[in-house]
Amino acid sequence: MLSKLPFSCDYLEGCHPAILERLSNTNYQSCDGYGYDPFTLAARDKILQACQAEDGEVFLLSGGTQANLIVISGLLRSYEGVLAPSTGHINAHEGGAIENGGHKVIGLPQTLGKVKAEDVENYLLNWNNDANHDHMVKPGMLYISQPTEYGTLYSLAELQHLSYICRQYSIRLYCDGARLAYSLASRNNDVSLADLARYCDVFYIGGTKCGALCGEAVVIREKNLIPHFFTIIKQHGGILAKGRLLGIQFDELFTDDLYLRIGSSALDYAEIITECLKDNHYQLLFETPTNQIFVIMENHQLQKLGEYVSYSYWELYDDEHTVIRLATSWATRAADVQQLCTLLEELQNS
Amino acid sequence: MLSKLPFSCDYLEGCHPAILERLSNTNYQSCDGYGYDPFTLAARDKILQACQAEDGEVFLLSGGTQANLIVISGLLRSYEGVLAPSTGHINAHEGGAIENGGHKVIGLPQTLGKVKAEDVENYLLNWNNDANHDHMVKPGMLYISQPTEYGTLYSLAELQHLSYICRQYSIRLYCDGARLAYSLASRNNDVSLADLARYCDVFYIGGTKCGALCGEAVVIREKNLIPHFFTIIKQHGGILAKGRLLGIQFDELFTDDLYLRIGSSALDYAEIITECLKDNHYQLLFETPTNQIFVIMENHQLQKLGEYVSYSYWELYDDEHTVIRLATSWATRAADVQQLCTLLEELQNS
Amino acid sequence: MLSKLPFSCDYLEGCHPAILERLSNTNYQSCDGYGYDPFTLAARDKILQACQAEDGEVFLLSGGTQANLIVISGLLRSYEGVLAPSTGHINAHEGGAIENGGHKVIGLPQTLGKVKAEDVENYLLNWNNDANHDHMVKPGMLYISQPTEYGTLYSLAELQHLSYICRQYSIRLYCDGARLAYSLASRNNDVSLADLARYCDVFYIGGTKCGALCGEAVVIREKNLIPHFFTIIKQHGGILAKGRLLGIQFDELFTDDLYLRIGSSALDYAEIITECLKDNHYQLLFETPTNQIFVIMENHQLQKLGEYVSYSYWELYDDEHTVIRLATSWATRAADVQQLCTLLEELQNS
Amino acid sequence: MLSKLPFSCDYLEGCHPAILERLSNTNYQSCDGYGYDPFTLAARDKILQACQAEDGEVFLLSGGTQANLIVISGLLRSYEGVLAPSTGHINAHEGGAIENGGHKVIGLPQTLGKVKAEDVENYLLNWNNDANHDHMVKPGMLYISQPTEYGTLYSLAELQHLSYICRQYSIRLYCDGARLAYSLASRNNDVSLADLARYCDVFYIGGTKCGALCGEAVVIREKNLIPHFFTIIKQHGGILAKGRLLGIQFDELFTDDLYLRIGSSALDYAEIITECLKDNHYQLLFETPTNQIFVIMENHQLQKLGEYVSYSYWELYDDEHTVIRLATSWATRAADVQQLCTLLEELQNS
Repeated sequence: MLSKLPFSCDYLEGCHPAILERLSNTNYQSCDGYGYDPFTLAARDKILQACQAEDGEVFLLSGGTQANLIVISGLLRSYEGVLAPSTGHINAHEGGAIENGGHKVIGLPQTLGKVKAEDVENYLLNWNNDANHDHMVKPGMLYISQPTEYGTLYSLAELQHLSYICRQYSIRLYCDGARLAYSLASRNNDVSLADLARYCDVFYIGGTKCGALCGEAVVIREKNLIPHFFTIIKQHGGILAKGRLLGIQFDELFTDDLYLRIGSSALDYAEIITECLKDNHYQLLFETPTNQIFVIMENHQLQKLGEYVSYSYWELYDDEHTVIRLATSWATRAADVQQLCTLLEELQNS
Repeated sequence: MLSKLPFSCDYLEGCHPAILERLSNTNYQSCDGYGYDPFTLAARDKILQACQAEDGEVFLLSGGTQANLIVISGLLRSYEGVLAPSTGHINAHEGGAIENGGHKVIGLPQTLGKVKAEDVENYLLNWNNDANHDHMVKPGMLYISQPTEYGTLYSLAELQHLSYICRQYSIRLYCDGARLAYSLASRNNDVSLADLARYCDVFYIGGTKCGALCGEAVVIREKNLIPHFFTIIKQHGGILAKGRLLGIQFDELFTDDLYLRIGSSALDYAEIITECLKDNHYQLLFETPTNQIFVIMENHQLQKLGEYVSYSYWELYDDEHTVIRLATSWATRAADVQQLCTLLEELQNS
Repeated sequence: MLSKLPFSCDYLEGCHPAILERLSNTNYQSCDGYGYDPFTLAARDKILQACQAEDGEVFLLSGGTQANLIVISGLLRSYEGVLAPSTGHINAHEGGAIENGGHKVIGLPQTLGKVKAEDVENYLLNWNNDANHDHMVKPGMLYISQPTEYGTLYSLAELQHLSYICRQYSIRLYCDGARLAYSLASRNNDVSLADLARYCDVFYIGGTKCGALCGEAVVIREKNLIPHFFTIIKQHGGILAKGRLLGIQFDELFTDDLYLRIGSSALDYAEIITECLKDNHYQLLFETPTNQIFVIMENHQLQKLGEYVSYSYWELYDDEHTVIRLATSWATRAADVQQLCTLLEELQNS
Repeated sequence: MLSKLPFSCDYLEGCHPAILERLSNTNYQSCDGYGYDPFTLAARDKILQACQAEDGEVFLLSGGTQANLIVISGLLRSYEGVLAPSTGHINAHEGGAIENGGHKVIGLPQTLGKVKAEDVENYLLNWNNDANHDHMVKPGMLYISQPTEYGTLYSLAELQHLSYICRQYSIRLYCDGARLAYSLASRNNDVSLADLARYCDVFYIGGTKCGALCGEAVVIREKNLIPHFFTIIKQHGGILAKGRLLGIQFDELFTDDLYLRIGSSALDYAEIITECLKDNHYQLLFETPTNQIFVIMENHQLQKLGEYVSYSYWELYDDEHTVIRLATSWATRAADVQQLCTLLEELQNS
């Protein structure tokens, strides 16, 4: 167990208590496997309603890398690759899952984890114009994340622009929403679930980092966009016999809009921590509107901080500084935030 | 929810209550992700101890097809294939997962789901002697299951013989233990966890069908037999961020030998049902020592049965008969068994 | 160099002299690479004309396994597998190329290398009716070969029946024509190139075993049946920079119907050898209408035969007999046939 | 046929006349298939001798992309990727073959097609130090080309440095020698075949662009470095039944050091063209020591040039300029060079 203040990531605790309660209450109800249980069916309906995507489909998977791998394999043909910001999770931290599945990840320039519509369009235009493009991987889709790996958000206008470009060039748009609850609860966000369903071809609603024990809900804009998707999931080992485990969790997360609210406290606490950092003259790598905070720490402070706080190493900044990440979550406690702030203040003034 | 008597399979209910309780008690403990939580570490130790495999390794995965796919991909080189009884789960019901991962499944003759050492040896001998074998897939491992897909068991002598052949020909032996608890609790079984660890290179201890919400524990006979296995799991989307979900379940299943006991009642109930079937002159496809019962039903009886009982269609027998499967599990209730027996009696006498 | 009489296979010599001459005459003509040379363009036209397939496409590849791998990968989606007689080349002797490419080869019962339409239909019907077929590989195509690996031929009626079943069940029909010239020249054959183009979706016209140094011509029934096929070939390493090498050979083979004639002498010689075998009371495994002869030899005769003749070991027959294969080709010489016959006669009478 | 002066690439003509002659002289010699013919055996010996690599192995393949795909698949495990200069052929122009085979190509910074040892070391060091590297693709090899895609050369000192780094970090070094003859004949080159065999783990000697009709000779530093490589080649469709086609060509190229001489005239002509360009105040993108010349042309000149000369479009330079490539080869004729120079002079002065 972590004996330190838990700010290293947003998957340190179990799940929202309502989910646990529901698992208990339903435990002895017998129901069909493989996603044909009534909880999964209810969750699908609620999610489609929340996304205003009546013609869509929902599939529940266990984790984010699995969702990315299976969706991308399902959408692309063998000769196609996926465009992604070079910092995209699929390009950097999924053990080469996409390439292992046969597809090239084509890294695009990025700023704070976001790709620009212009850069996407330029790539597609150049590819179209290249006389030798039959010797090259055909770009078949664009991968983005909301929030990004850097906690930043696409605005609705940006999403619309990306979507417009993708449709103009007949490639798919896919959004990785591993931390989607932290964008939906952000006051700086203007992209709703319905917007994602409208402007993306496929996206997933992250459960694991947003209050579930496990699980991501893949939303497909229209039925049969990916034919035989069940078998594709099966052949990647992504079908749980007890699909109820995923169904119950998402049914609960989408009851009374819990998912839309579950990120709020994380954002409040992230703001408090950010203010504390600024008040105490810490240097932020940049300010983010969601639950991840990137701080440029002096190296000599890190050891002390590490004695009391569990944080994430992010990257070297220069010889004397290191970027670390602090993350809040739906489970973050007020007392821990207060202790963290006190500690940060002391550290700067010692 | 199933309104009928639930005998179609062994994954119809949630999980053993001790697991639910443990999930609740530990819910707010913060701990590291990706299998570095203390529950997973404890579960690994307990499993290795139960298997008397101190030099071994344990990895926790979500489901059976995932375990098969990842273990087989990890063990084989691209030019190798896997021998399996033609009825093996990997050959028949995993959506071509193994082939999608690049490896041929080579079907061998089988009897009630079991492969004979002689047939394995013949195949290997013929391959060795074939002057053109460089043009053929090299057999790299043997896949078996315990219990098999037909509920039958390998005896210790049979396992030893298979193991001997595999080692003589330098191929791996892998055992799929999706329903392992139902063999361990069987009075007809003489193969222990330690035997599996000694005679197989890798096997997995099934959780999903044996009392867990999800999860299978892959046991590798010796450390580093599969180098970089974490990354191999990651690139197949098999790493859960909240590894605690798997750790807590297996820690509980291997506390006070729960896993060794959890299948007992299922076997008792299976015996009761079998006796009832025999007493009432139903024809069994064959008798099995575990929790699956295969009955040859007259077609005209099936409709009636289906009104009250959830069973599995297995295969056509002849124009007037159909084979069905009835399965018990750790969650099977005495009252349901009694009702089922009453119904079977009535059905035969009506 | 083989110092023995060369009857082990049909790829022992170089190529038809007309091809060599054409390679020489065109050697210094500069032309574009990657199949955009005028020879390839001419060869495509001639082949389409010979196949009466004006709406089709032709791609020239280097070898048979390559053609099978690339065509099957191009036609199937990840969740699909290929039905084939269990003796089919893709199932037995291509090193698992198809599975390495991600697809299951589903072996069907066969007789002398041929599959029956009834068996194909039964498989497809059962698959359609199986309630669990989403957990199984979807059959996406049928692979056959003409002549088969056993030198036998499908009749036109049989091909039509297979084609009808495939279309009824919406799967593709693909024919491996590695030795096609030896069927086209057979008096027992009633399947023309145009028939193959009409009843198959894709087939290939074998060059390597039929007079070329290398090369197989893949004929696709209609344009864009396999979109982006050039890139699919490229990503399998199947595009030759000097596509002219293939273009020149097929242009020559399809000039003045050379391909239709090139197998004739091989068949004449095969008949002579067969007659000699029968006259001398050798036992044939079965009689074939093409250029491969399967003989059941007494083991004690084999050593003697092997001193003078290069033959192919085929399989054990019983403790005292072995099946061998003798093959003729476009390059077989009358003198060698005569020597072989004399030897066979002596051997039987010694 | 190209009616223009042929300078677009180095694979516009057939093959060296000695090869054609040898194909003719040996045409009717019967010999074993699949690379067991005496020509291939002789070629292997001669190549190993030329490389001073008695303990090595040689395999003959059809083309460059095929060689890259098969070697990289053979060397890497599934969790490994290949480092390459971002301009490397495998990263840009092979249709995603490496990723289709399951491996990530990790692009490194490059200058004129070359990667620096420092950049390689930095990548490997950072990877080693990254606490999360189990979530990342493990770098398993470095891919370079000699000459590079930009016609530049690694010096012996540079090759030694790269080799040292690779061995220090236990990754493989592989060199793509598609145009190797043009480096070996260059006066600016100090890297011999023996150096490549000593400092690389695997490299290939390009035939297709260096005087052969097709074919690349893969040289492996020591036997069994890639176990079961024949089957690996087979499963990628890379085995030619008539292996003699490759054997004869390489036997001839390595008779009397033909391969070491075959690039000389191409380099002489490249120098003449380069001098002409400089004398006439054309701007070179940079000067190269081999057979490819990169010129920054004014757009209005291009149309005129294109009427008489077949050249390669390379890339846009700015709004008014375009980079083109002119390539010479073993087959380039003096008269064509002279006409080209006259034309370039006229164009600049018109």
